[in-house]
Amino acid sequence: MKEYVIGIDIGGTFTKSGFVDRNGNCYAESVTPTDTFDNVDDYLDNLIQVLKVSEKQLEGPYKILGVGIGAPNGNFHNGTVENATNLKWRGIIPLAEMVNKHYDLPVKLTNDANAAALGEMVYGGASEMNDFIMITLGTGLGSGLVVGGELVYGHDGFAGELGHVNVVENGRKCGCGNHGCLETYVSAPGIKRTVFELLALDSRGSELSGYSFDQLDSEMIYNAAKKDDPVALKAFDITGKILGRKLADSIAHTSPEAIFLFGGLAKSGDYIFNPTKKYMEESVMGTFRNKVKILPSRLTDRNAAVMGASALIWKELEK
Amino acid sequence: MKEYVIGIDIGGTFTKSGFVDRNGNCYAESVTPTDTFDNVDDYLDNLIQVLKVSEKQLEGPYKILGVGIGAPNGNFHNGTVENATNLKWRGIIPLAEMVNKHYDLPVKLTNDANAAALGEMVYGGASEMNDFIMITLGTGLGSGLVVGGELVYGHDGFAGELGHVNVVENGRKCGCGNHGCLETYVSAPGIKRTVFELLALDSRGSELSGYSFDQLDSEMIYNAAKKDDPVALKAFDITGKILGRKLADSIAHTSPEAIFLFGGLAKSGDYIFNPTKKYMEESVMGTFRNKVKILPSRLTDRNAAVMGASALIWKELEK
Repeated sequence: MKEYVIGIDIGGTFTKSGFVDRNGNCYAESVTPTDTFDNVDDYLDNLIQVLKVSEKQLEGPYKILGVGIGAPNGNFHNGTVENATNLKWRGIIPLAEMVNKHYDLPVKLTNDANAAALGEMVYGGASEMNDFIMITLGTGLGSGLVVGGELVYGHDGFAGELGHVNVVENGRKCGCGNHGCLETYVSAPGIKRTVFELLALDSRGSELSGYSFDQLDSEMIYNAAKKDDPVALKAFDITGKILGRKLADSIAHTSPEAIFLFGGLAKSGDYIFNPTKKYMEESVMGTFRNKVKILPSRLTDRNAAVMGASALIWKELEK
Repeated sequence: MKEYVIGIDIGGTFTKSGFVDRNGNCYAESVTPTDTFDNVDDYLDNLIQVLKVSEKQLEGPYKILGVGIGAPNGNFHNGTVENATNLKWRGIIPLAEMVNKHYDLPVKLTNDANAAALGEMVYGGASEMNDFIMITLGTGLGSGLVVGGELVYGHDGFAGELGHVNVVENGRKCGCGNHGCLETYVSAPGIKRTVFELLALDSRGSELSGYSFDQLDSEMIYNAAKKDDPVALKAFDITGKILGRKLADSIAHTSPEAIFLFGGLAKSGDYIFNPTKKYMEESVMGTFRNKVKILPSRLTDRNAAVMGASALIWKELEK
């Protein structure tokens, strides 16, 4: 009998879901709105209804083993979503418990970067690794730490927030309220902000001077770099320097076998990997030098978050 | 029948050892030289001989359950001491295997700060904690990370080297070969270096201006601080700022319940704890603010390293 786990990835705008088998194949995918519902009960009613309809696409005899959820500010220990700034629902939402009323199955929940780390372990490039770090580079910088084969949740369930370590004293304003957080420099908006700083210093010879702040995105910076645009190249170098140095700190914490980069910026290939690696090796303690691989994630982009969410359950079942 | 674990703490100059019971009581302690032996075989022959003689002091029927060793650059995974800069023996020493020839018992080995973290968990203030960080402040800054009730060893067995995260680009020269490592600022020699920087800026009204670099030690700085010496007070504030900010980074990694400070500098009490706490809370991501305790270690100073080493075995036996 075929076995599936329901994977649910809750984003600020959309919620993606699917039925994922042990090999990471995703079936009966669906997308439902998140932010059109002011009330979490209405949101969940709609989501469950869509899941029940989608499930009818599954063929042959099958069994559903559980529900894994990736959600902003997801607390693994309590199955709650807590004060997520990019969701409309305030306070502490007991989401796992609420889903449990519809599915009498194990329901597990964590944040999306932790889910991606589990996805890398269950389906991706970390299947043989016990110690690694996952870095997701999107509108922010997310991270998931795996130590001794287990995801690090920490005392309060929120461990692995590397996007919010400080890199510049009194630096760029961050969405979290602090200044100078890593993700204000290393993320899609982060490299854009760096481009604007560089244009202010010297815009000569750069095609990026033709875009407004609202127009520019990280793909344009990547395309400019491929044409040897000096500002774009410099922006990648600075981004890799800041990331590489912070990864050196992370290595001193958990001594991983590898660090995976996932998401939009990671797709810039050598433009981001080379400086990251270079400055990481320069900065890291000798004990760890030339030991830690920096690798592109092997999760497929389209379903990574849904796969990661479902990995929460597959990982539990393997214990 | 009384049960003991042999705890061995290998320092650059001396090796301390003792027979430790499950409550952390240390019996038949001994101190043997480390650096008088150019050859590790001779060193070990002497150490074993002393242990065998010391063992005769134990009274009544007893059983020895294992040998725990704390050593510089100790690799837990392999039981080796690897290229330790403050030991005379070069290369990779299979110390656990060598000890095993004399004691047909479990032999475990790690570095001294990891051992101290285990000691805090087995005998000290972390007995009820699953997630905490141990910081040892001595001639360097050592650290041990505990995640989910387990010490973090990492892929290569050397995790938890927080003394060697960078805090100042091109900063102070560190014994590890890099510049600007945390321990060049936060340690007994670190605060002394800070005092000398401050004296260079403004030495007025400070009794510390009367000491040479070779004379000054961290206890003199503490004593001056108690008399409101402006340079001493400022030095503690700077030390706590640098430590507190880096602890904020560590919290974002593993979200501990508490951070313990151990060793000479930690005995300066409020002078070091207050600024550390203040700057840590200022710098840490909101999610973690006012959640993480900074506590003095509850290991007794005299035997802490030997206790920690023996905790390696007690911890394994409890599995």
